[in-house]
Amino acid sequence: MLKVGIVGASGYTGVELTRLLVNHPGVELVVATSRQHAGRKLSDVYPNLRGLTDLVCEDVVLEQLVDRADLFFTAVPHQTAMNIVPAFLEAGKKVVDLSADFRIDDASVYEAWYQTHIAQEYLAEAVYGLPELNRVAIAKARLVANPGCYPTSIILGLAPLLKHRIIDAGTIIADCKSGTSGAGRGAKQATLYCEVTEGFKAYSVGSHRHTPEIEQEIAKLAGNPVKMSFTPHLVPMVRGILSTVYGTLLKDVSQQEVDEMYQDFYRDEKFVRPCSPGTFPATQFVRGSNYCDIGLHVDTRTKRIVVVSAIDNLVKGAAGQAVQNMNLVLGFEESMGLHVVPLFP
Amino acid sequence: MLKVGIVGASGYTGVELTRLLVNHPGVELVVATSRQHAGRKLSDVYPNLRGLTDLVCEDVVLEQLVDRADLFFTAVPHQTAMNIVPAFLEAGKKVVDLSADFRIDDASVYEAWYQTHIAQEYLAEAVYGLPELNRVAIAKARLVANPGCYPTSIILGLAPLLKHRIIDAGTIIADCKSGTSGAGRGAKQATLYCEVTEGFKAYSVGSHRHTPEIEQEIAKLAGNPVKMSFTPHLVPMVRGILSTVYGTLLKDVSQQEVDEMYQDFYRDEKFVRPCSPGTFPATQFVRGSNYCDIGLHVDTRTKRIVVVSAIDNLVKGAAGQAVQNMNLVLGFEESMGLHVVPLFP
Amino acid sequence: MLKVGIVGASGYTGVELTRLLVNHPGVELVVATSRQHAGRKLSDVYPNLRGLTDLVCEDVVLEQLVDRADLFFTAVPHQTAMNIVPAFLEAGKKVVDLSADFRIDDASVYEAWYQTHIAQEYLAEAVYGLPELNRVAIAKARLVANPGCYPTSIILGLAPLLKHRIIDAGTIIADCKSGTSGAGRGAKQATLYCEVTEGFKAYSVGSHRHTPEIEQEIAKLAGNPVKMSFTPHLVPMVRGILSTVYGTLLKDVSQQEVDEMYQDFYRDEKFVRPCSPGTFPATQFVRGSNYCDIGLHVDTRTKRIVVVSAIDNLVKGAAGQAVQNMNLVLGFEESMGLHVVPLFP
Amino acid sequence: MLKVGIVGASGYTGVELTRLLVNHPGVELVVATSRQHAGRKLSDVYPNLRGLTDLVCEDVVLEQLVDRADLFFTAVPHQTAMNIVPAFLEAGKKVVDLSADFRIDDASVYEAWYQTHIAQEYLAEAVYGLPELNRVAIAKARLVANPGCYPTSIILGLAPLLKHRIIDAGTIIADCKSGTSGAGRGAKQATLYCEVTEGFKAYSVGSHRHTPEIEQEIAKLAGNPVKMSFTPHLVPMVRGILSTVYGTLLKDVSQQEVDEMYQDFYRDEKFVRPCSPGTFPATQFVRGSNYCDIGLHVDTRTKRIVVVSAIDNLVKGAAGQAVQNMNLVLGFEESMGLHVVPLFP
Repeated sequence: MLKVGIVGASGYTGVELTRLLVNHPGVELVVATSRQHAGRKLSDVYPNLRGLTDLVCEDVVLEQLVDRADLFFTAVPHQTAMNIVPAFLEAGKKVVDLSADFRIDDASVYEAWYQTHIAQEYLAEAVYGLPELNRVAIAKARLVANPGCYPTSIILGLAPLLKHRIIDAGTIIADCKSGTSGAGRGAKQATLYCEVTEGFKAYSVGSHRHTPEIEQEIAKLAGNPVKMSFTPHLVPMVRGILSTVYGTLLKDVSQQEVDEMYQDFYRDEKFVRPCSPGTFPATQFVRGSNYCDIGLHVDTRTKRIVVVSAIDNLVKGAAGQAVQNMNLVLGFEESMGLHVVPLFP
Repeated sequence: MLKVGIVGASGYTGVELTRLLVNHPGVELVVATSRQHAGRKLSDVYPNLRGLTDLVCEDVVLEQLVDRADLFFTAVPHQTAMNIVPAFLEAGKKVVDLSADFRIDDASVYEAWYQTHIAQEYLAEAVYGLPELNRVAIAKARLVANPGCYPTSIILGLAPLLKHRIIDAGTIIADCKSGTSGAGRGAKQATLYCEVTEGFKAYSVGSHRHTPEIEQEIAKLAGNPVKMSFTPHLVPMVRGILSTVYGTLLKDVSQQEVDEMYQDFYRDEKFVRPCSPGTFPATQFVRGSNYCDIGLHVDTRTKRIVVVSAIDNLVKGAAGQAVQNMNLVLGFEESMGLHVVPLFP
Repeated sequence: MLKVGIVGASGYTGVELTRLLVNHPGVELVVATSRQHAGRKLSDVYPNLRGLTDLVCEDVVLEQLVDRADLFFTAVPHQTAMNIVPAFLEAGKKVVDLSADFRIDDASVYEAWYQTHIAQEYLAEAVYGLPELNRVAIAKARLVANPGCYPTSIILGLAPLLKHRIIDAGTIIADCKSGTSGAGRGAKQATLYCEVTEGFKAYSVGSHRHTPEIEQEIAKLAGNPVKMSFTPHLVPMVRGILSTVYGTLLKDVSQQEVDEMYQDFYRDEKFVRPCSPGTFPATQFVRGSNYCDIGLHVDTRTKRIVVVSAIDNLVKGAAGQAVQNMNLVLGFEESMGLHVVPLFP
Repeated sequence: MLKVGIVGASGYTGVELTRLLVNHPGVELVVATSRQHAGRKLSDVYPNLRGLTDLVCEDVVLEQLVDRADLFFTAVPHQTAMNIVPAFLEAGKKVVDLSADFRIDDASVYEAWYQTHIAQEYLAEAVYGLPELNRVAIAKARLVANPGCYPTSIILGLAPLLKHRIIDAGTIIADCKSGTSGAGRGAKQATLYCEVTEGFKAYSVGSHRHTPEIEQEIAKLAGNPVKMSFTPHLVPMVRGILSTVYGTLLKDVSQQEVDEMYQDFYRDEKFVRPCSPGTFPATQFVRGSNYCDIGLHVDTRTKRIVVVSAIDNLVKGAAGQAVQNMNLVLGFEESMGLHVVPLFP
């Protein structure tokens, strides 16, 4: 069994990684760090894990950590990641980084949206970890930049259209809705139950940091630079992202042609499920799983296409995709440990 | 005291009308019909009303109803409304109709999206009941077509931009999110708690019946015919609609100019609250009230503007606006009985 | 118009007091304090209040506050209240205190469950503010100790049974369930949306601080000291307390006798609604209102009675009852400003 | 691979059985019946199952069904079960029946709470399927009566206390709270999202049909007949039962003694997790899993003990326990296919 560790195990992404890894047949989870909870059993921090792991959270002491596993998941905030990832790489370890720090190819773009980047020398080799598009490169990588949750849903939703030049990439509007688990387990007034439930709002309108990541990957698919509108919203639910993406058609195309295009494009993918023609996804049908469900509507009235994609932000949008990337990096079958049936109801 | 009646009192719109009318200082609610619950006390059907009304639901027998009140709210499904509204008008009564039957000016458009219209002779005199835009006409009307919930949020959100020719009406995309109360109290699997909670989905993509209503009113504001994209979504909450509306700018305009434009446009409106610059609405802050809150983002990167508007679909999107229209029709102060503070948390 | 102020306006009880007071015909809300938000408009802290109040939160400077209103609501935590209430009383003002500091008659009991009491000299004159039982004394009081939310629901539920010696007070078990608004607006991990939604738990089992308050009031009704079991639970909802209370019957009594006993006992009460025989309350039917709904089941199999009572914890359990007390203290009609119809759905 | 079938696959218990069985290493799910959805793919009825099963729902034609599998789960309503279970048994098949029809030993008790029993000849051999108490008998059974959800949580919570004669069984009060999935997927007004969310209520007070089942099993543990109070409540959540159970102590016992008693009693159980001393369970930490978590409070003030137990009603309260029983009946390791980590958040 290969050994893996989680740096930042006490966030929601951390517990989700743990959920998937304790049942993974190919690896053993041997390290879980949490500055806040150092010394506590991880199963006291997350009682759902009682009986499933004996790990005790430990502080992050890089020199003591680097030798204890073959691969590390860094589930820490951006800026923190760039401070610790290099140590693992220099020790010859593989890293799947769940932060934004290694997703943006161009350091100046990163710095315009985030802050100074102090580990730019690793940007060139970091591979954007969307297996459906970058499978081969991921398998050879030692540093995988696990995609953001919103970008995952949008890019998987648009890839066939962009590759086949069906829509004008300059007209893309992505109106996205996310559950609150994306905001993390830190105590904040804005994510209290009483503030979130039975309410709906937009946030970071025109300014969300996933924008350059989405534009970068769309540009690669479209073959030229792209600016797009991206508006995230907060849904009163824990898990799930549903992205409704609009684009203007470049040519006449029928509903049936587009449906078949998606069926073809994703035929061999285990985790992308194009919906039956005329049906659309719902986040509750991917909950807890690594699936991305996609529905399509060709609107001949307005000459636009509407793509609706749904993922569980903590799974395909974070921990599940990270395990999928780990499988590729470590040479396992890509879906190993990810056969989780969506929990409905 | 003038007398009013509700035809269709046992739906969510009906109970909401009752909530507002039992405390209204100018009218007395004297009739509540419900085919399904005829003979039951309305407060048994809706226990929140216990101690507040003694009304007993009665069956709809038009000839017995028409003389018992001065104004009737018809809170019944489309197609049913067109069968009963004429009787009230012919008896010299005023009607605020909450269905879609008298909202579409052009019968052929109505018939393309709904079904045969059997009371077309009333279409010309029916006034579209959005008081902020049609106040004078409503005050003279005997038949007010109370707007749909989605149209209310979209039209109030866009009106200043369209009147001032700031955006290209042909580029409008309205991505809208609604609570489940809009689906009514009828028992349907799709709106069971277990199906809705902790999930999010789009529905009626490209085909929702509010589309022609929105296009009709936008066309009036824009001065020419318009086709727009409208995608409704179902939010796991009871009340509230949040509409995120995108349009391409026709000219350079600053954030400050647009903010001031909205402040000016809605300066004397009691029920429209433009947000402070840089802030955006949330449905939980209009819950239970007749307010429409509007936030704005001028996106110079993409040359688009993003308008976010929020209402309570059962109040400003239905019963509250109906009472506002009633006030105008009956000559009361427009906000009478509508001083309900939004219930938060 | 008499003037009133709220000390501690930025908590959920504070915004709820504001909601009720801005529409109250007899008083003007002139002061709102909040240490955390001093200098901010209250309507920025609570955007639901936009357009309804221009109050700016101010810091608590007692000497500057005491003369500015006739009555003050102290909506602050226990221990804080005892530090500020005396200043208002000494300035000749009336106080409705929403904390626990003046609810317990016996300082030693208070100190056993809370901490040292530094204003014991006011305990004797403080009146326990449950109007249905203490109306006359409240009207004469200058200091009203507004009851806790759980105690309100339990005591109103049990009062007729205890007064009529129907149950053995020593057998009382109160199993209570509350929404999360009772935990306040402070940022705490335990009340994050993701921690609370779709979950249910007990808390403070056998140790909740409302226990001595409930026992004190039950003892007064029963005529002798009482120990009872009280278990609070956290419901994934914002508002509402439902208490299920069990007691062993001291004598044979029929369902009908008990139903009539409650109808008689609460016949003239505007805010207590005994349910129709065979029906039971639900918190959603009192939401936003000052009602307490009560249902009863005489269980001849087990010789026990089950009382189920429901209130909105922020209204009858806090702000609404405080306004009811204010009305009594200031000589207004007891229900003034409290004609709020429960918001359902 | 042994073959299994589900009769009644389109209810929430059916989809949950499917979720567990499609990943079970020892059996193949080969039949799924649903009168309502006959001819539809099960994954169209439950889109979470897309890509995981190709089963098509079929009508229930007993003679065609009985030979197609080795064991059948009957996930149908009571009264329906008694009509179909005998056919499977007579064909030499094993049955795990999830209805109430074979849980009550005494037909007259069954008939007093339900209706006429037409398959009484099978009552004697049906084994009550609570593996933690009846493991040996279950392994030999051909008909297992899978316990009700409430009874499972209550009985597991009380078993150590009753076996060790710590409490007076005549004083037991079980105040239980359940998510709404227990009410099934049928369209009913009472379980609509708008009726359930943000509300809490008791139901079937003093009359719920699980009462005789609980009393029967408690009596076996206590060694004499028992009458107890049982009050179920509806929580605005999908999954989970939390039972708060009160009993009067027969003798002095310390918190530590009771904690150790539970640790001992459940030491070898894979699916019962006594909480750490001083902590209590929450339904969100068992969600989706087969665990039963139990917390304890010895209340020396009132001479009572409070037991709090939590399960997922669809798993340990239905489908998971059914698979656990299947494993015993078919000779598999008892936890096979049930290593599902609770999904939190």
